Amino acid sequence: MPALQSFLESRRFEVFITVLIVLNAVTIGLETMPAAMARAGDLLVFLDRAVLAVFVVELLARFVAYRTAFFRDPWRIFDLVIIGLSLVPATGNLSVFRAFRILRVLRLIVVVPSLRRVVGGLINALPGMGSIMVLLALIFYVFSVIATKLYGGSFPDWFGTIPLSAYSLFQIMTLESWSMGIVRPVMEIYPMAWLFFVPFIICTTFTVLNLFIGIIVSAMQA
Amino acid sequence: MPALQSFLESRRFEVFITVLIVLNAVTIGLETMPAAMARAGDLLVFLDRAVLAVFVVELLARFVAYRTAFFRDPWRIFDLVIIGLSLVPATGNLSVFRAFRILRVLRLIVVVPSLRRVVGGLINALPGMGSIMVLLALIFYVFSVIATKLYGGSFPDWFGTIPLSAYSLFQIMTLESWSMGIVRPVMEIYPMAWLFFVPFIICTTFTVLNLFIGIIVSAMQA
Amino acid sequence: MPALQSFLESRRFEVFITVLIVLNAVTIGLETMPAAMARAGDLLVFLDRAVLAVFVVELLARFVAYRTAFFRDPWRIFDLVIIGLSLVPATGNLSVFRAFRILRVLRLIVVVPSLRRVVGGLINALPGMGSIMVLLALIFYVFSVIATKLYGGSFPDWFGTIPLSAYSLFQIMTLESWSMGIVRPVMEIYPMAWLFFVPFIICTTFTVLNLFIGIIVSAMQA
Amino acid sequence: MPALQSFLESRRFEVFITVLIVLNAVTIGLETMPAAMARAGDLLVFLDRAVLAVFVVELLARFVAYRTAFFRDPWRIFDLVIIGLSLVPATGNLSVFRAFRILRVLRLIVVVPSLRRVVGGLINALPGMGSIMVLLALIFYVFSVIATKLYGGSFPDWFGTIPLSAYSLFQIMTLESWSMGIVRPVMEIYPMAWLFFVPFIICTTFTVLNLFIGIIVSAMQA
Ligand code: NA
Ligand code: NA
Repeated sequence: MPALQSFLESRRFEVFITVLIVLNAVTIGLETMPAAMARAGDLLVFLDRAVLAVFVVELLARFVAYRTAFFRDPWRIFDLVIIGLSLVPATGNLSVFRAFRILRVLRLIVVVPSLRRVVGGLINALPGMGSIMVLLALIFYVFSVIATKLYGGSFPDWFGTIPLSAYSLFQIMTLESWSMGIVRPVMEIYPMAWLFFVPFIICTTFTVLNLFIGIIVSAMQA
Repeated sequence: MPALQSFLESRRFEVFITVLIVLNAVTIGLETMPAAMARAGDLLVFLDRAVLAVFVVELLARFVAYRTAFFRDPWRIFDLVIIGLSLVPATGNLSVFRAFRILRVLRLIVVVPSLRRVVGGLINALPGMGSIMVLLALIFYVFSVIATKLYGGSFPDWFGTIPLSAYSLFQIMTLESWSMGIVRPVMEIYPMAWLFFVPFIICTTFTVLNLFIGIIVSAMQA
Repeated sequence: MPALQSFLESRRFEVFITVLIVLNAVTIGLETMPAAMARAGDLLVFLDRAVLAVFVVELLARFVAYRTAFFRDPWRIFDLVIIGLSLVPATGNLSVFRAFRILRVLRLIVVVPSLRRVVGGLINALPGMGSIMVLLALIFYVFSVIATKLYGGSFPDWFGTIPLSAYSLFQIMTLESWSMGIVRPVMEIYPMAWLFFVPFIICTTFTVLNLFIGIIVSAMQA
Repeated sequence: MPALQSFLESRRFEVFITVLIVLNAVTIGLETMPAAMARAGDLLVFLDRAVLAVFVVELLARFVAYRTAFFRDPWRIFDLVIIGLSLVPATGNLSVFRAFRILRVLRLIVVVPSLRRVVGGLINALPGMGSIMVLLALIFYVFSVIATKLYGGSFPDWFGTIPLSAYSLFQIMTLESWSMGIVRPVMEIYPMAWLFFVPFIICTTFTVLNLFIGIIVSAMQA
């Protein structure tokens, strides 16, 4: 249906959806304020549901207009997932889904062309960096296993299992309290521990800088 | 009045104003030293007022010389705001304005051409980075709302309201005590909290690096 | 023996070895989990030894196929060292060698061409950075000696010997707790200590950034 | 005296002096070890004085060979200052000068051509960055004065005087414990303090990154 397609792609409709997204972001933000909820809670909940209803109708219209082509555009699938998450009934264990409603704001990335270009540029640069990411994962896995075997017994909170070690090593890679918080205490029991952690810091900070600069340079050249 | 204009734009007048600004910076600095105030407080206050008087006269002269063109130069409006702030009577609640007198030193950026070029270059690069800044704001807003909903109840000092969450997330983005100070305590109650904070750190440090490098590259090419 | 060489260089054999390495990485990881060891410990140990046996046979085959040319490829020597480390009997003091078995995963860098290209690019960029690395070592040595002489007496844990000082200065270079954790306590006894540490921070962070960017730029141009 | 000049500039003499510098670095390092001093203290002190004597003779020879041209080479003046510092008798208050003897190791930068090229490249890039450095100094001065006036009363250890504020702001610029260590405590008394510190962090980290990248790019292009 070309008429529906041209309507969905019109500048006016883009602005309309953008306004709805921003309005929804504001209402979801206000819902975190007890004062706002006491005064206008019903209105906020109504607006939220009304906007969601419009988004669902928009999604259905796009599906009618593009049919199978809908699923060829990864941005539309992103849209589908975000709106789908909002429709999950949020009760009991799933109350975390209510918090995820704010992810709808990320629809702005799909709707505003300049945002889509920036994010698309960064995402397109990722595959070219695949080897460095595999290398980084490899370094993390190797060091996590060694840390678990060497220090897991004495420091179970930090290095008791491979996932705990990976988290602690991520903290160390970001240089957060790596020495005063982790390595100096470890060195009190294992004095040579710096031979493990200092090379880890040098390898990973360097690899991550390489990865980030690689992505940024790729995205700028495109 | 071309004569007044050429006088205001003369190299000699530029040097004169530069000297006054530096002199004023010194007197305002000395005012923070009780010993200096005890010995030469009256002189310091007099010099401060005398320099301010010259600046006001300079501003009026520029207004007479350029008339409406005055307001077309953003640097002059910056000048006007800074000198205006100095004229606010600083009593009671407004005593903070006395501290802002030192902002007059920033007039150096307006007066010294090489400084104006550097700052101008950086400011001119900002609009090209608009999309990345919107993206960063979006990421911050989404994560702040989610943090407030998920962790606000248990950690009201850090995540009790959206502004508190935004401040804590800014701290986390700068990697300051993010793990030992914030995320490890949060994980004692919510063991899966790393699923929220680690992606936040990766997304925002990467986006900020991208933003900074983008501005620097733009400013260098210009 | 060209037939053996073409077999060892075939795509199929590369995939076979890659699968074995990943399988071995998984079994070594599972060995850190008590639950997995209780259920299938014998199988894990058997798989580990079987994979190691295949690697040893592969190494011998390569040696037969390439003879002295084997030692001309630095990647193969890397291979030899890693597999050699795995064969060291791990008893008593040498139990740390058991932890090093995971280093076999690094064979992926040798086997997967794209990883070898990335790591090779970074390593090839190192010699061009030799001068900056010597400079950094020089700065570290000079500051470590001075720190030991000036602050070693009052702060033996941090600056008691040259290696302790070098470690503490490495921590300071990474900006980890440098002020609240080290320099503020030192300044309570030596108020001018900032004259030592602040220039150290400026020199080394700048030199390291220079080194990292130099390597990354070299690796990208190649 | 061209004969003396060609001797001083010969490759053989360069190697001789390089070996002496490295030897001296080792003896000064060993002097920090009580065990080494107990065993061979006299030898270490003798070697140190012997090397210094050779350096003084070298300096005099250079002065004889080049006369006034000696002072036109900034590297030679650097040499002169370092050797001069070593000759200051180190007694009482001046015992800090004994620690500075290790600075002689920095003569390597003068003697080894590749090191001189790297350091020279970085130093030559500094003037082109003059404006950014002035800008950074300006930002620091303005924020230090304001911090002293606003927070000096309540937090005299951190912001009691302009130099104390400048040190604390340098710490904050390096992101070391800025929030948990400084800004959160300050916000307990001045809840709006983030309006001061967050812009400071953004301005200065960005300006410093700009400065560092500018110097590195200049040095690479040369
Ligand atoms: Na840090
Ligand atoms: Na820290």
